[in-house]
Amino acid sequence: MPVHLAPPDPASLLPVPGVELGIASAGIKKPGRKDVLVMRLAPDSEVVGVFTQNRFCAAPVTLCKEHLHDHDASGGIRALVVNTGNANAGTGEDGLRRARETCASLAGQLGLSARQILPFSTGVILEPLPHDKIVAVLPDAIADLKPANWAEAAQAIMTTDIVAKAASRKVALDGREFVVTGIAKGSGMIHPNMATMLGFVATDAPVSCEALEAILRHAVNKSFNCITVDGDTSTNDSCILIATGATAAPVIMDDGDPRFNSLRDAITELMIQLAQAIVRDGEGATKFMEIRVEGGRDEAECKQIGYAIAKSPLVKTAFFASDPNLGRILAAVGYAGVTDLDVDRIKLWLGNVLVAENGGRSPGYQEAEGARVMAEAEINVRVHLGRGDAVATVWTCDFSYDYVKINAEYRT
Amino acid sequence: MPVHLAPPDPASLLPVPGVELGIASAGIKKPGRKDVLVMRLAPDSEVVGVFTQNRFCAAPVTLCKEHLHDHDASGGIRALVVNTGNANAGTGEDGLRRARETCASLAGQLGLSARQILPFSTGVILEPLPHDKIVAVLPDAIADLKPANWAEAAQAIMTTDIVAKAASRKVALDGREFVVTGIAKGSGMIHPNMATMLGFVATDAPVSCEALEAILRHAVNKSFNCITVDGDTSTNDSCILIATGATAAPVIMDDGDPRFNSLRDAITELMIQLAQAIVRDGEGATKFMEIRVEGGRDEAECKQIGYAIAKSPLVKTAFFASDPNLGRILAAVGYAGVTDLDVDRIKLWLGNVLVAENGGRSPGYQEAEGARVMAEAEINVRVHLGRGDAVATVWTCDFSYDYVKINAEYRT
Repeated sequence: MPVHLAPPDPASLLPVPGVELGIASAGIKKPGRKDVLVMRLAPDSEVVGVFTQNRFCAAPVTLCKEHLHDHDASGGIRALVVNTGNANAGTGEDGLRRARETCASLAGQLGLSARQILPFSTGVILEPLPHDKIVAVLPDAIADLKPANWAEAAQAIMTTDIVAKAASRKVALDGREFVVTGIAKGSGMIHPNMATMLGFVATDAPVSCEALEAILRHAVNKSFNCITVDGDTSTNDSCILIATGATAAPVIMDDGDPRFNSLRDAITELMIQLAQAIVRDGEGATKFMEIRVEGGRDEAECKQIGYAIAKSPLVKTAFFASDPNLGRILAAVGYAGVTDLDVDRIKLWLGNVLVAENGGRSPGYQEAEGARVMAEAEINVRVHLGRGDAVATVWTCDFSYDYVKINAEYRT
Repeated sequence: MPVHLAPPDPASLLPVPGVELGIASAGIKKPGRKDVLVMRLAPDSEVVGVFTQNRFCAAPVTLCKEHLHDHDASGGIRALVVNTGNANAGTGEDGLRRARETCASLAGQLGLSARQILPFSTGVILEPLPHDKIVAVLPDAIADLKPANWAEAAQAIMTTDIVAKAASRKVALDGREFVVTGIAKGSGMIHPNMATMLGFVATDAPVSCEALEAILRHAVNKSFNCITVDGDTSTNDSCILIATGATAAPVIMDDGDPRFNSLRDAITELMIQLAQAIVRDGEGATKFMEIRVEGGRDEAECKQIGYAIAKSPLVKTAFFASDPNLGRILAAVGYAGVTDLDVDRIKLWLGNVLVAENGGRSPGYQEAEGARVMAEAEINVRVHLGRGDAVATVWTCDFSYDYVKINAEYRT
């Protein structure tokens, strides 16, 4: 039974007042493919972002940071432009120039300055961005701008993704209803930090820049920074959170506002939904695994052990084979780098089956029970470290023939 | 063109005076397979070892450390017993008991104490060691003991290895000739520290325990601790260095002895040969890659970046596909964790082809040249960091369909 993959129902994706989206085909990698997205934001929108920590960050990431830093002087971020098919990474000064020219062209057509544009690219690294092709179709994307284009936008930012990733929800704040809608793309080079993906989430709630930053940090830490497909951190990861304020209400200035937590939780849950969708659609994935590490001294060591399990090719191939070869999980716990771990205190569950305790296999464990859990498409692994109260959860997928196939043939 | 794999020529494997080897079939995993090895050492042999740093270390690793620690009181290590088919790891107190009983049985038959035996196991984790089967065939192994059994011993310790790994060389020390011979096994869960494998190397030179320790640390750091197949550190890794002193000469007491460096270098070169053989025979490997990182501030950061490249599934699948998708190498350099790296100073060569410089693709680079290098079975990758004089070399293999197949079907 393969992991459940379904594109979002377009009717479930609620427009966000103050956000319009337009799509175009530039033929960057394949002719006819929709590969350019423009998002236009209402004046006075607040925009914040988190970006890859890869030292080889792409040219558009460098420009995004520059433009976000300058937003007070420039009049604020008013549009985003995204292309797939080419990452504009490992392209040096020439890559920066091409990204700047793309921003300048869009700015000219929208009556903005280039610094009010955030550019994003995803695709192959180390090849020159064919920015002329992008610039040539910006008029098409602008002509297509409308609030109801979220499903089409989710499609347009896909690379090796099988399904589009989008989600939407309403949140009531002090009796008024607001919308949160977001899209994301995976599906290889998925490992924090940052989220190794593109994500764009918007709300019409009015939020100060500082409060929006705090919400984004919290939400990313609980969502995109808890997933891994292959342990590779991309050069282009970007997650953008937009608050248009287009639906009138008093501005949420900080976490002292009683509406802050409700909005933060709605955005966090939406980002978790998108992050899990990326893992379910991990390259070649046939299984979805939730790895929960409990009983640690702090969240960091729980996450460290969770990631050691989630990244192990031996663990991932065992899940692909539905083989309860659970010693591989214990081995990963043992080499995760928590050097004073007492292995005799560790307990390991597969689903609700206690597999290991007291440094070895649990006396009551029957392999048939382990095999039954392994046969499922969504599997929970739980490890208790027996040394504290901290908890962390990490999501990942299995490692299949198709992972190798997709990545061996990526450029063909 | 697949990577070159050939078993060692048995005639090239020189007996080591003071070491006898005997093989037997216990039928631990498969009936009829030779899966037990006994090595008997001359009295007064010096024996030193390095072991996995996995917190879930196997029962035999625990016993090895105990027995090596006690060697002065016990009369010294006089025999080794190795089984494949079961790792006796994640087996708790019961696993220790079974390993102790195996040692006691061998000791009784050889007129030794149990503490003079070192036990080793490799195979599936988390299942009880069928030590009765091993004990039952110890008389066969003892009857088979002879100095010329190194090729058979290399065969007997194989698990998923395709070819046996053994090497031998002569070294002249102060006009006298000595022998160094060793065997090793891989081929999954290959990542330091320690070497994620079993290795047994012996010489007939007379060396003090302290000098032998220093030689082992040096040699392992330059060999088994420079390889990775899948980034998984095993529970059972052990590398043992034996000096029988059976060929008479003054004892090499420390590195002040002019013979120390010659012997150290001979042992290091032999261990590099065995370590590279493990990578060439990595599970599913079709390519062998040497990754040399130069121009770092210290060896540690060079190794860190070398391992980030060597472990990346995206890099490894690109090599499998012979696709010069070299941006994946730059991405791995960027996320290796050296946070103050100046990417504009980095140069990347594939073979002798300069691929990237100044933060992007080298102006003279032609993809056809990259493709020509990628088509070879043995490939050199060289990265220059432009920030110092340190160098480190790491060896790895590609990531193929067969890696997934071997590890998905490991227990079937």
